[in-house]
Amino acid sequence: MTAEIGERDGPFIPGPRAMLAGAATGPLAGLRFAVKDLYDLAGHVTSYGNPDWARTHGTAAATAPVVLELLEAGAALVGKTKTVELAYGLTGENVWHGTPINPHAPDRFPGGSSCGSAAAVAAGLVDFAMGSDTGGSVRIPASYCGVFGIRPSWGAISLAGCAALGPSFDTPGWFAGKAAVLAQVGAALLPDEPSAGLTPGPLLQPDDLWDNADPEVVAALRPALAAVARLLGQPTRLQLCPEGLATLYEGFRCMQAQEAWATLGRWITATAPAFGPGVGERFAAARDMPAAQAAAGRHLRRQFQARMRALLAGGAVLAFPTSPIAAPLLTASPAEQNTVRQRTMGVTAIAGLGGLPEVSIPAARAGGGPVGLSLVAGAGQDRMLLRLAEAVAAELRL
Amino acid sequence: MTAEIGERDGPFIPGPRAMLAGAATGPLAGLRFAVKDLYDLAGHVTSYGNPDWARTHGTAAATAPVVLELLEAGAALVGKTKTVELAYGLTGENVWHGTPINPHAPDRFPGGSSCGSAAAVAAGLVDFAMGSDTGGSVRIPASYCGVFGIRPSWGAISLAGCAALGPSFDTPGWFAGKAAVLAQVGAALLPDEPSAGLTPGPLLQPDDLWDNADPEVVAALRPALAAVARLLGQPTRLQLCPEGLATLYEGFRCMQAQEAWATLGRWITATAPAFGPGVGERFAAARDMPAAQAAAGRHLRRQFQARMRALLAGGAVLAFPTSPIAAPLLTASPAEQNTVRQRTMGVTAIAGLGGLPEVSIPAARAGGGPVGLSLVAGAGQDRMLLRLAEAVAAELRL
Repeated sequence: MTAEIGERDGPFIPGPRAMLAGAATGPLAGLRFAVKDLYDLAGHVTSYGNPDWARTHGTAAATAPVVLELLEAGAALVGKTKTVELAYGLTGENVWHGTPINPHAPDRFPGGSSCGSAAAVAAGLVDFAMGSDTGGSVRIPASYCGVFGIRPSWGAISLAGCAALGPSFDTPGWFAGKAAVLAQVGAALLPDEPSAGLTPGPLLQPDDLWDNADPEVVAALRPALAAVARLLGQPTRLQLCPEGLATLYEGFRCMQAQEAWATLGRWITATAPAFGPGVGERFAAARDMPAAQAAAGRHLRRQFQARMRALLAGGAVLAFPTSPIAAPLLTASPAEQNTVRQRTMGVTAIAGLGGLPEVSIPAARAGGGPVGLSLVAGAGQDRMLLRLAEAVAAELRL
Repeated sequence: MTAEIGERDGPFIPGPRAMLAGAATGPLAGLRFAVKDLYDLAGHVTSYGNPDWARTHGTAAATAPVVLELLEAGAALVGKTKTVELAYGLTGENVWHGTPINPHAPDRFPGGSSCGSAAAVAAGLVDFAMGSDTGGSVRIPASYCGVFGIRPSWGAISLAGCAALGPSFDTPGWFAGKAAVLAQVGAALLPDEPSAGLTPGPLLQPDDLWDNADPEVVAALRPALAAVARLLGQPTRLQLCPEGLATLYEGFRCMQAQEAWATLGRWITATAPAFGPGVGERFAAARDMPAAQAAAGRHLRRQFQARMRALLAGGAVLAFPTSPIAAPLLTASPAEQNTVRQRTMGVTAIAGLGGLPEVSIPAARAGGGPVGLSLVAGAGQDRMLLRLAEAVAAELRL
């Protein structure tokens, strides 16, 4: 299939492909990767998904250090991938470069904002691909496209040389077709584990997050949850968010909006860029975000982080549907997309507010597309989480 | 004295002063503060210490969220302060805006890059002032100017809306004339403590860091160390950095340079800005930094972080001279400045590489100017450290 699709349907930025050889030897030697077009590559323009950004920012003078690390570890860069404009959207739509086809559900959105990276992995064009995640931008396309994806602990990996959206939430992240490759990349990029040797468990099953998902998603993911339970023991059920997922979403949304406008408002105001559907509206809402709402979000985050720390410090792992709904159809109306967005971001806000690592495992299909099972651990326990994801993948024969 | 000094000698950015009222009530009500001119204020130009930066970046559309938090807590903003250009220097010199006078050592540099914020506090013009710290830019001016200063744990406080230098090292930070105010600001900005209720101690006295300091600095700070020992018990002596401070400095310098060029190289290349002495040279070195040297720095950081985590997790506190040397004379040659820089950054690299919180206490005078005693704790133990600093200040009757 991939040979037949054109630039507008493919995962890469249209035009000549950025290519960089990796070191001859190293732990990632022989692997091919791509990077979302918000990672700078020296001598290349970083578009951030938007033609006016590309036009006004010019050529990068340096390559983002995290990309250099991957090259030093032996991986070969074979292209830059599409992103939602300024990384501010979850469907994966990009009207300028074309929305990449979701290889495993061609009638549905690929998810975003790291749409091209997820689609490139799903199509088998690369072994892994770097994305970035602020409010779900790795986890959601991983779920929609049926690939492994990780949002690491906030702050674990440098974002120098990467375009920002909401700095106190922004993380890099990556996709892989195999759990072993997901972990290999982590071994190259992640800092040493603060609690090395921590054993994962107990397994926690948040009823509120399962209740929030479509019944067909829940049913499809039950075998995967059972596989995790075979490894960690029967799950302990709990209400993770007594304040309600809508409250989490609201807190996250208001803080993210304030940070997004603080980060990008100057450029948007000065440039008046052309945006595709929804993006400009979201930035207008960010501009108009009342400070008191963002302050309430910060208050919520403080409490939520303390709660998650207490819950997860000993190695406990949360398991829940990455996305409560399969990928929306490409024909979904803006109103339908918005409903999906709200329900989804109540879930993705958990790792976002908590600064927690989350791995999405391509465990099933439901509602017309792939759906992922998420595992979330305490901050700094990324390596433990990646080892667990490998074991779960083996259990599921993925 | 302060009434007599002009704009070129004062701590504030020349021209009309940025002023913003704080909330009527709140934990910081009644306090006046200033911010280094790398924090965005809506409707104001952020100069980052450089006229070409100001000219090419235009007016900020939003106020940095951390500044909003301070206003919401009741503090009143009374100005923006001078900074070394692009925050890349430790003396505090700024040829465009004028180097602020060091109120407690007028023949000496104020220290940088947060020179104006430290000088404004030292002159009693504000109760506290926000700076930022990548490689010592809060700690060194705090020591040189004889005020309290904190570099918080990396990542603890959002830098959205602040200009960046080396993202994986950049932190905000603040200065205060009183330890209680330093802690009050921390209470408003810091996240809840991961290890709340942790008792500080034991006290660790790194021989290598004391041996690195001038004998007069060591002698002047002995009473302060004794005061800490009265609170925490007799210090345990150790060699903190068997690899040598020069090796720490080298690792830090190479990583910081790579990140600085990844962050600012595009703008410097496109704009060819005019820089004052030393700044352009440092960016040229950053541009030419071999990737392998930065990679070696990352390797060092990984090991160093793991070692510091093991050493400090239980509440242990390091105490050592913030700067091994008092502030250099304004007449110091570039070569002399460079020697001071190298000896100093072997020390400041500790919290930088480790992501650790560090408080500098204005404990003594030596060699013609103030010198600070630094206390360093484990990452995330900022509140504990601020409480300890208050107790030490009381013990020293500061």
